[in-house]
Amino acid sequence: MTSDALIDDMIMTPQEYGVGARFTLAVYDTDYIRIITDALEHVDRGDLIVDTGDISTFLTGSEQDIVGHLGAVIGHAARTGTHVSAAILLSRGCPGELECELPPGVPALGACPVALDPTGIRARAHWSLYPLMASADERHMDHIHAAIDRARRSGVFSGSDHFASRLDGDLATVLTTAANAWIDVGHHVQHVVSHLTISINSPTPIPEP
Amino acid sequence: MTSDALIDDMIMTPQEYGVGARFTLAVYDTDYIRIITDALEHVDRGDLIVDTGDISTFLTGSEQDIVGHLGAVIGHAARTGTHVSAAILLSRGCPGELECELPPGVPALGACPVALDPTGIRARAHWSLYPLMASADERHMDHIHAAIDRARRSGVFSGSDHFASRLDGDLATVLTTAANAWIDVGHHVQHVVSHLTISINSPTPIPEP
Repeated sequence: MTSDALIDDMIMTPQEYGVGARFTLAVYDTDYIRIITDALEHVDRGDLIVDTGDISTFLTGSEQDIVGHLGAVIGHAARTGTHVSAAILLSRGCPGELECELPPGVPALGACPVALDPTGIRARAHWSLYPLMASADERHMDHIHAAIDRARRSGVFSGSDHFASRLDGDLATVLTTAANAWIDVGHHVQHVVSHLTISINSPTPIPEP
Repeated sequence: MTSDALIDDMIMTPQEYGVGARFTLAVYDTDYIRIITDALEHVDRGDLIVDTGDISTFLTGSEQDIVGHLGAVIGHAARTGTHVSAAILLSRGCPGELECELPPGVPALGACPVALDPTGIRARAHWSLYPLMASADERHMDHIHAAIDRARRSGVFSGSDHFASRLDGDLATVLTTAANAWIDVGHHVQHVVSHLTISINSPTPIPEP
C-alpha cells in the first residue's frame, strides 16, 4: 500500500507519518539576509507547513510539495549568481526526534516518484541514504540495492566518495534522484532518512574525474 | 575491545575502520574565500588526512583529532564575527560509500571520549544520530538509549525538534556532546553516523523556549 493511498483515505497524514525535511540555505554574500528572505518569500508554500528558525527550516507535506519547495527556494537564491550551499535532511516514517513516536506495526509507506522541471542551474552534491528500521520483509536489502542502482544509473550520479555519493547535474535532477531513492526505499523500510549537501556557483575548481 | 586498543595494536587503523568526517563550512560574507582559506590554513592538521573539494572537506584520523580540527576551523571562521554555519557528517564502521566495504564479523569499535577546551563561542545546532547496522548484542537499543540520555543530561541539550535534537552552548561542548554520543553508540553498533548543522552569529532571533 502506498502512502498516497493511505493518506488519501485519511488513514495517515504526511505529518502523522513524519514525511518532511529540514534544510539550511547558506548564501556566501554580505547581502545574504535579503537574498534568503527574497527566496523564502517569493516561493509559493502551497499546502506545506513551513517553520523557519535560526538553525534550519522545517517542512512537512507531500513529497512532491517538499521537493518542489526545496528546488524553488535554492534555485531562487542561486539565480543571484552568488555561491550558495544547502544542507538538506529528508525523513519519513519517524515523526519524533531521537526516538520514534510511531507505534509498532505501522507499514512502510512509499509514495509516487516526484518530478521537477529543469532549472538550468548546475548543482553538485554529496548524498547519503540511511534505512533506519529493519523491515519484516526479508528482501528489504534487495529493495535498497535496487533503489541505489536506479540512482546510480541516473544521469547525475557522478562517483563515490567516503561516506557519500557525488551527484552532479541540474538542480532539479539532483534533488529528484535523491528524493526518489528515499521514497523507493520507503516502500520497504519504515524509517528512511537521507542527507544532501548541495553546492552551487562555487569558485573552487571541480576535481578532474 | 576499544578501537584504541585495536588501533594501537595495528589491527585496524581509523582509515580501515572508516572513522572520519565530512563537513561544509559556509561563511555568509562576500569575503568568504579569504575567511575559509584562513581557517583551513591556520589550523594544524596534526596526523589527520584532509581532502578539501568543492562540495565538502573529508577528514580521517583519530576521533580526538577530527573533533579538534572541526572545532578549530569553525571557531577560526566564527571569530571574524560573520555569520557561519557548518554541515557536519561523522561516520564510523563503514569505510565505503552507499554500501559497506567491511567484511562481516568486524566487532563494533568505540573509542575514548573526546574533550575540547571551551571556545567562548556560542553555537546552536540541529543534531541527529543514526545507528545503521544491527548488532549481535541484543541489548544494543539499551546502549543507544543510554548514550542519548547522557547527551540529554549535558548542559547543551536544548530541546527536541522534528527529526533533530537542538543543542545550544559553547561550540566545544556542542561538538563533544554529539561526538561522544556517536562514539558511545559505536561501542555497541558497528556503523554509526551522526549529522549536525551548526549555526553561529546568526542575526535571526532565537525562538523563545
